[in-house]
Amino acid sequence: MLERRTVITLTSDFGTKDPFVGQMKGVIININPLVELVDITHEITPHNIKEAALSTGFSYRFFPPRTVHLVVVDPGVGSSRRPILVVTEDHYFVGPDNGVFSFIYQKEKRYLKVFHITADHYFLKKGSPTFQGRDLFAPVAAWLAKGIPAANFGEEISDYNTIFIPEPKVPAKNALEGEVIYIDRFGNAITNISLEAIEQLRATGNSLRIVYKGRELPLKTHYSEAEDKGLKCLINSFDLLELFVYRGSAATEYEINIGDVIGIIARQG
Amino acid sequence: MLERRTVITLTSDFGTKDPFVGQMKGVIININPLVELVDITHEITPHNIKEAALSTGFSYRFFPPRTVHLVVVDPGVGSSRRPILVVTEDHYFVGPDNGVFSFIYQKEKRYLKVFHITADHYFLKKGSPTFQGRDLFAPVAAWLAKGIPAANFGEEISDYNTIFIPEPKVPAKNALEGEVIYIDRFGNAITNISLEAIEQLRATGNSLRIVYKGRELPLKTHYSEAEDKGLKCLINSFDLLELFVYRGSAATEYEINIGDVIGIIARQG
Amino acid sequence: MLERRTVITLTSDFGTKDPFVGQMKGVIININPLVELVDITHEITPHNIKEAALSTGFSYRFFPPRTVHLVVVDPGVGSSRRPILVVTEDHYFVGPDNGVFSFIYQKEKRYLKVFHITADHYFLKKGSPTFQGRDLFAPVAAWLAKGIPAANFGEEISDYNTIFIPEPKVPAKNALEGEVIYIDRFGNAITNISLEAIEQLRATGNSLRIVYKGRELPLKTHYSEAEDKGLKCLINSFDLLELFVYRGSAATEYEINIGDVIGIIARQG
Repeated sequence: MLERRTVITLTSDFGTKDPFVGQMKGVIININPLVELVDITHEITPHNIKEAALSTGFSYRFFPPRTVHLVVVDPGVGSSRRPILVVTEDHYFVGPDNGVFSFIYQKEKRYLKVFHITADHYFLKKGSPTFQGRDLFAPVAAWLAKGIPAANFGEEISDYNTIFIPEPKVPAKNALEGEVIYIDRFGNAITNISLEAIEQLRATGNSLRIVYKGRELPLKTHYSEAEDKGLKCLINSFDLLELFVYRGSAATEYEINIGDVIGIIARQG
Repeated sequence: MLERRTVITLTSDFGTKDPFVGQMKGVIININPLVELVDITHEITPHNIKEAALSTGFSYRFFPPRTVHLVVVDPGVGSSRRPILVVTEDHYFVGPDNGVFSFIYQKEKRYLKVFHITADHYFLKKGSPTFQGRDLFAPVAAWLAKGIPAANFGEEISDYNTIFIPEPKVPAKNALEGEVIYIDRFGNAITNISLEAIEQLRATGNSLRIVYKGRELPLKTHYSEAEDKGLKCLINSFDLLELFVYRGSAATEYEINIGDVIGIIARQG
Repeated sequence: MLERRTVITLTSDFGTKDPFVGQMKGVIININPLVELVDITHEITPHNIKEAALSTGFSYRFFPPRTVHLVVVDPGVGSSRRPILVVTEDHYFVGPDNGVFSFIYQKEKRYLKVFHITADHYFLKKGSPTFQGRDLFAPVAAWLAKGIPAANFGEEISDYNTIFIPEPKVPAKNALEGEVIYIDRFGNAITNISLEAIEQLRATGNSLRIVYKGRELPLKTHYSEAEDKGLKCLINSFDLLELFVYRGSAATEYEINIGDVIGIIARQG
């Protein structure tokens, strides 16, 4: 019987034209030939930490326990910003301490440890200060996947950095004000309003009005339930409220941008 | 000795920027850690079922027997369109019943079974109706690759949907009229005229004239055989007639579009 | 215990939309199911042999010993240009004899053997002259990774082709004149001036002036050390001099092109 191989996922803003991702994979396999490599994406907008935080936050829970998630979106590479290793109940995360794991900190409060990676005997010899993805983060991920305990890589810290991941406001007891946080390839606009928050509003026994730019949006259960090309919404596969146009691009057709506000009001009737 | 790992290929219109493909892979590995994942493409034009049908039809036979081909181009996701599992002599195909396997139905008539997937205990718990690629098709592919018999996923059906994959017309005994069905990255225009059809015409003992927009095209055996930048044709690596310009883009330079007609006439001499 | 699986890296100009790369991988796995496939890139500019030579040359040394590097950028496919297999101290390279391995010839002079691949019983049966990547190079890489000795694929040759990979000029004892050879996704402009060459100049005891288009560039150790948006340079992760703008695109903002000249002068003080 074959053994389970530990998974390392890769997320970066390196693109797929330059050989950077290939080099990271070479370094990982050289240290740990039994690892299973899975790309999440390398098309993060260059230097966009928030986009990487969302992409990682949307995805990690679909992977097996003990998966190592390597996230290298690192405009401060080579500076004094710390390399870190985040341990949650079921997963490991390796990357720079620039807030790229903020979504994980939010979701995994129950069990969370963050280590400052300093054990440089795990790094690539003669590493370059300009490509720590390859020379520091990739080797650490490979050794971690090989079974080296997290604490061996450095001291635990509590002053790690977070970036602002917007959460919905509650302007009144029966209302919620969220915003668009991500737009996908199909032009669907994903908001920060969770299924859970909507269910809480619904539990008041009232019906919900969902409003975007003064327009009330019908709430559907799936894309093809829409009967026309108008702007609709649904709870998407990340359990978040999403604006869409059936077989069209909501973002393009309705000029939706990240940060746009969506309101929900629960009212009698 | 290592055992052979079952291959699952992935084809979709999800692109590589969003984390959708990564999530599907996480789900698959979580169920079946010994699988070998190979991307065919995730750059299918959004919702273009015919393009996915061609891409799958061009590729499946290069994979080992018992490979599972997962194809998720699914504009009707969440609606009543059925999820299906197609079994041919050597391969499995998992995806929506929207015609995306039409090319397979055409080529694998000899041994073909189609099952309507209904056994929801194989699906992801708490699945979303908006992302069945991840919550239904990926788990079914993973379990199938693990050895669960095809018939365990649901009843066999015979009323599966097909889309129109154009076949060449035979306007006269000594003539053939095909069309452009796919344009590749290099601007080569692939037609639906097969090597086999051309050989049948040739068997009449006549020489062939290949005509596109009133222009007669020389038939070459490989790209670099062309001596100039003019429009030429050859039998390509899918055994189909293809229009090309050596070190140039036939599609751009000669304004070739999908659906354009190519005629072949066999004449004496 | 799992055994180490041999790695095959893939580099091509096939893009990721068409199913060409997937087909090559299918062929490889069909012959050698225990191989580990790693994409370097498939976004080489179509037919750009030099770009592929650089990408391969920048990357191979990060992979484990005995890795097979498959490079298919092959505008002359099907013509009389020879398929070759290059053996260095630690690595194998498989591809066309069009100069795509020139960087390897330069760097691996110490132990280098080149074989003309002629043993067609290793090729795909009924191969197409238009897609030797799939029908010739992929099978050879797969068999090689399976342990077939290099010499079994054909005769050793010494008249293999090289393309011009520019090396810096030395216009005076205390000066160096290099050029931009590669521009990456971030707009960083990589030159052909190596760390080693710079250290030799520095060994004269003089300080260095690095000049691009009459502008003197400060030499930094990492990107985020830059205090403003001006054009700077550093030694990059390939040990080459690189021009950059912190959190910006040097290539776009300073209109840098491949072939642009960079001078270094060592002067007293």
